[in-house]
Amino acid sequence: MLMNFLLPLFGILLIALNFKLLLNKPEGNQVMIDISRRIRKGADTFIAHEYRVVFMYAIFIAVVLGSLTAWYVSVAFLIGACMSSLAGYIGMKAATRANVRVAEAARTHKQLGPALKIAFLGGSVMGLSVGSLALLGILLVMFIFSHQLRPEHFEIVQNYLGINFIPIAMTLSGYALGCSIVAMFDRVGGGVYTKAADMAADLVGKTELRIPEDDPRNPATIADNVGDNVGDVAGLGADLLESFVGSILSVIVLAAYTFVLSGKRNYETALALIKYPIGFALIGLASCMIAIVVTVLKKVSNKPHAELNTAIVISAVLTIIGNFFYTSFALSGLNGLEMYGFRFGPHSAFLSAVLGIFAGIVIGLLAEFYTSDNFWPTRNLSYKCKQGTGMVISGGLALGMKSTFLPCLVLFGTIITADYFAGLYGVAMAAVGMLSFVATSVTIDSYGPIADNAGGISEMAGLEPEVRHITDRLDMVGNTTAAIGKGFAIGSAALAALSLFASYMFSQTSPGEFVKRIQELLVLNIINARTLAGAVVGASLPYLFSGILIDSVVKSAAKMVDEIRRQVKEMPGILDGTQEPDYERCIAISADGAIKEMVLPAIISIVSPLISGFLFGVEFVGGLLVGTTLSGIMLALFTANAGGAWDNAKKHLEQGKIEGLKKGSDEHAALVVGDTVGDPLKDTVGPSLDILIKIMAVVSLIFAPLFQRFKVF
Amino acid sequence: MLMNFLLPLFGILLIALNFKLLLNKPEGNQVMIDISRRIRKGADTFIAHEYRVVFMYAIFIAVVLGSLTAWYVSVAFLIGACMSSLAGYIGMKAATRANVRVAEAARTHKQLGPALKIAFLGGSVMGLSVGSLALLGILLVMFIFSHQLRPEHFEIVQNYLGINFIPIAMTLSGYALGCSIVAMFDRVGGGVYTKAADMAADLVGKTELRIPEDDPRNPATIADNVGDNVGDVAGLGADLLESFVGSILSVIVLAAYTFVLSGKRNYETALALIKYPIGFALIGLASCMIAIVVTVLKKVSNKPHAELNTAIVISAVLTIIGNFFYTSFALSGLNGLEMYGFRFGPHSAFLSAVLGIFAGIVIGLLAEFYTSDNFWPTRNLSYKCKQGTGMVISGGLALGMKSTFLPCLVLFGTIITADYFAGLYGVAMAAVGMLSFVATSVTIDSYGPIADNAGGISEMAGLEPEVRHITDRLDMVGNTTAAIGKGFAIGSAALAALSLFASYMFSQTSPGEFVKRIQELLVLNIINARTLAGAVVGASLPYLFSGILIDSVVKSAAKMVDEIRRQVKEMPGILDGTQEPDYERCIAISADGAIKEMVLPAIISIVSPLISGFLFGVEFVGGLLVGTTLSGIMLALFTANAGGAWDNAKKHLEQGKIEGLKKGSDEHAALVVGDTVGDPLKDTVGPSLDILIKIMAVVSLIFAPLFQRFKVF
Repeated sequence: MLMNFLLPLFGILLIALNFKLLLNKPEGNQVMIDISRRIRKGADTFIAHEYRVVFMYAIFIAVVLGSLTAWYVSVAFLIGACMSSLAGYIGMKAATRANVRVAEAARTHKQLGPALKIAFLGGSVMGLSVGSLALLGILLVMFIFSHQLRPEHFEIVQNYLGINFIPIAMTLSGYALGCSIVAMFDRVGGGVYTKAADMAADLVGKTELRIPEDDPRNPATIADNVGDNVGDVAGLGADLLESFVGSILSVIVLAAYTFVLSGKRNYETALALIKYPIGFALIGLASCMIAIVVTVLKKVSNKPHAELNTAIVISAVLTIIGNFFYTSFALSGLNGLEMYGFRFGPHSAFLSAVLGIFAGIVIGLLAEFYTSDNFWPTRNLSYKCKQGTGMVISGGLALGMKSTFLPCLVLFGTIITADYFAGLYGVAMAAVGMLSFVATSVTIDSYGPIADNAGGISEMAGLEPEVRHITDRLDMVGNTTAAIGKGFAIGSAALAALSLFASYMFSQTSPGEFVKRIQELLVLNIINARTLAGAVVGASLPYLFSGILIDSVVKSAAKMVDEIRRQVKEMPGILDGTQEPDYERCIAISADGAIKEMVLPAIISIVSPLISGFLFGVEFVGGLLVGTTLSGIMLALFTANAGGAWDNAKKHLEQGKIEGLKKGSDEHAALVVGDTVGDPLKDTVGPSLDILIKIMAVVSLIFAPLFQRFKVF
Repeated sequence: MLMNFLLPLFGILLIALNFKLLLNKPEGNQVMIDISRRIRKGADTFIAHEYRVVFMYAIFIAVVLGSLTAWYVSVAFLIGACMSSLAGYIGMKAATRANVRVAEAARTHKQLGPALKIAFLGGSVMGLSVGSLALLGILLVMFIFSHQLRPEHFEIVQNYLGINFIPIAMTLSGYALGCSIVAMFDRVGGGVYTKAADMAADLVGKTELRIPEDDPRNPATIADNVGDNVGDVAGLGADLLESFVGSILSVIVLAAYTFVLSGKRNYETALALIKYPIGFALIGLASCMIAIVVTVLKKVSNKPHAELNTAIVISAVLTIIGNFFYTSFALSGLNGLEMYGFRFGPHSAFLSAVLGIFAGIVIGLLAEFYTSDNFWPTRNLSYKCKQGTGMVISGGLALGMKSTFLPCLVLFGTIITADYFAGLYGVAMAAVGMLSFVATSVTIDSYGPIADNAGGISEMAGLEPEVRHITDRLDMVGNTTAAIGKGFAIGSAALAALSLFASYMFSQTSPGEFVKRIQELLVLNIINARTLAGAVVGASLPYLFSGILIDSVVKSAAKMVDEIRRQVKEMPGILDGTQEPDYERCIAISADGAIKEMVLPAIISIVSPLISGFLFGVEFVGGLLVGTTLSGIMLALFTANAGGAWDNAKKHLEQGKIEGLKKGSDEHAALVVGDTVGDPLKDTVGPSLDILIKIMAVVSLIFAPLFQRFKVF
């Protein structure tokens, strides 16, 4: 057991090392240092404020959770909340230090390679934090409460309220919930922050004043750059950590319930199956560490796309090879695997996970197909600018809607095949597989905003256009890879959801209940009026949630628009560069908006299954979860792809790839509107939906026995 | 039985009478007559072409359907296709004759009242056609195949392919499918036609050339007006007829299966329950006829909103009262009602239907709340124009998303309560109730486009602004009431879907199979991997379908934009009014686009359950239906409300209700973009989704036994 700790601890060592390596790089001239310090200060101030609020809520939830279930659940919950916050915090720290150094590398070397390496180094701190801290937390919880895994405690207990649960499953659910809730706050808060600044900067800067992006004359420009760090780095890290933990949890809880409800046969098998996803993920983490070290040490070429792909491929291949052997060691020779539906012996679970890896990559490639201007969908979208803004918007909506179909076919194939290999355990393992090399994929995801920030700094510091050109090329690659990361988050949520549904059904069983055939418990009948009615309401929740999020961004952005207009009007020196705009006011507006707006969506995700359950019982909540999951997956795919396509369609024109059209034209303005509309969709709404799905599922799972006892109607 | 025919026949008499009354009204001056003739010619040509294509497909489908099931199914299918086409055709004929007469009445009387009466008269032809022909068709089918209702034929039979079905259920499913498929072609074809013209006219006319709507200098203006008739009148009529028939069918099939599967107890009861929804609908039709005659005969005031509401209230109240007594007569004294879940005796079904009426009205009022500028959501949206186009679009998306939640709560309440009253039979009856006064609601729905056309004619004929003002006021009321009609269509689809799911499950039973407890058949387990995978794919289908539809409109509109620009450039006399634009070219572009684009969506709706079923079997298709229904309802509500709100937000500014802003300003341009984006959403995508849901459900219901026998995997 203790041996397992070595890997995440080694990961933390690597984080420290990479951070140190990063800090050793030169920061550039005084102007650059000043700007970067401002961004850093903005980000630090916001995160500090955000975390104070988050922790107030977290402690409140921990107290309620603990008093309704058991004290150890709230301890695990707080550990989860800490791990998630810590990962976001460390990653954000590194990103706000990497940005200026990337710009400086581009300036001194005039080459992609060195800049790429620093951006990668900065991103790796975030990636390794996510991978290491997620697993460290799980191991910690399982170590502290290791007695819950002993045969005598490994059964359904009843607490003073009469709620039944399996202690280890409940404790780990608490841990996952802690990660998820912090992720929700971080994603929504960061998302509102960054997109309010971004939208306003675009709306007034590009469209009204017609000054370029990141121009120092735009008062919102620092806020925009701060936003990249708190939203796209810290928010993203917390989100992927949550997904990673959620998928592992879904395997463990399923295994635990299957064991207990089958009359506690094959203790060794159950234990092995509970530990298996953790082992699988640890080997994934080790593979990522190797890939990251290799990329950091080797001479980096000027082809960012190839370099990043190599890192991913090394991680994936090592994960697969390593886990092949690990599986032979961990699951061979066990009895009772057929109880979990292992059709091909011990390697059934491994096959499912590998399937998940490939499914994740295919979903990612599909996202790239729909959103990159290397392919016709986005290219065609960019040409629509010739017919006006309306057509750009309609075309983007159509693109986003159509883009949901193929990923769903992939999910369908994955679910059916993984189920064939190893039952629901296999489906859940496919989610674990998809996220097993999360450290590398998050590294690449957070590399994007770092490059983006570097571009901002180079623009504000008035560096040569060549520097900006280098950072732009880095950023574009980041956009595509970010789409892949989003695919992993939503794909794994869909897969994990299925086994969470199953666990939800299991969790309604009482301790004394003798179950002949476990399958009988696993029926959630959608033709039942109550379940279907729940599904209808559930399907509308992601829409309600998304509408509220867009509104939050719009509200905050509107305030920012007014502020920018006010400054430009009252300080005429701003536009000719003789007067410095009041950046701090804009930072404050974004921060206040984000803190205020992040609470309601988080509350919706926790409270809606509770209210539903206490009013209408478990069948209704079952339907609610199904509806939310289905509609959440669709909205997540739709918003991510529509937003990504609008962004890149605009860049397509900006890079002079549409003959005869250039920046500042009416056609460009039409594409800028598309990008503005897409901003909150792809960076605030889309990435929060997978968290919504999981919080609702885990909350329902925890409280299902209570619904049964205390339901009103 | 024969007595029942009297009512729809009397309805047809009233149609003739109203049509005659309409034709007696004066047509106005020669310019007006010329314009109206052009619109009529465009509409006639298109409908003739469209129906040729539709009937080719219909005959093909009828042959396939007949050879796989039984010949009488294809006969019923063709009767359905005829009724649906006929209703659209008659209504469109009346509308293209009413438009010019409304303009003339406004011109001579300078008052709302007389114009309102003619518009209402024109709309009533469509409304009564829908109500009468739908029921006439059902009665005809049941009369021709009345032997299928005799006890000896009323059971599960097996055809030469080994497919099992109940003849009467299968025949009526064929009838409903005929209505649905024509509706799909009409809705999509008409929707693409009208919105391509509308979008292009807005994009070039309003935004580029800055000439007003319906200005005769705009080459697309006649095509736009033709579109109102083929899309918003003929398409709408076919759509509501389909919904009406679909809801009645869902009750009948459920009653038939319950009877047969329960071991054929209580023949009298089963027969009464099969006839009950038809009787309920007949009384609804009679109530509508009374309300329409009263409105036509009485002195009409200048308050259109009040007049229309009165017509609705008379229809609803008479429907409720009449059916209270009808229920006492039709269902009292029957045995075996408890088998269908009638908790409060015979009136359980009546209560469910009344619940449906109220639910429909509440959903409609919610649509009004979200889309009318009398309430804050749309008013706030219109103020967003001050912050630019991006904010208008984002705000509208947010509004549409949030607007899905409350209607879903209403649906939830209706499903739960109707199920409590009378089981699934009650849920299906709620859908029938919601649509029971369809004749009046369609009258009011088609009154809108008539007023819109009248406005177009008055603009093109250069009549005084006063005339346009009157038609505008009529049109605005029409917009709100149209939102209510859309609420009925989607609400009833959701309710009907539940009982269609149940019938789908029943239809998988073999003749010899002895069923102890009917409830055991009614389990579609969503936790089954195959079902959930089906649901994921199903949920993506409405998105794929919507994306394709938007693309179709955009593609067609783009061609139109090019054509308008070409004409304005090559014929410089157009803009100063010395040269007449080539209207016919634009009409041809719209028509060709519509005919070409209407086929694929129709094929998707029919083929997707078939492919799925033959590949992956009944559980997968069950999931597919659930996914499509849930996601289709959400998209329908979202698109209808977002589109309606954008439209009215634009009108809000145009009517001078935003201080300091007027037509032609940048702010107005921002709202015009919103309206343009909303056009295909609210008038092409949204209204087609309920048809998609029903076609998929009915196709699955018909072919379920085949899936079981011939599935591949």
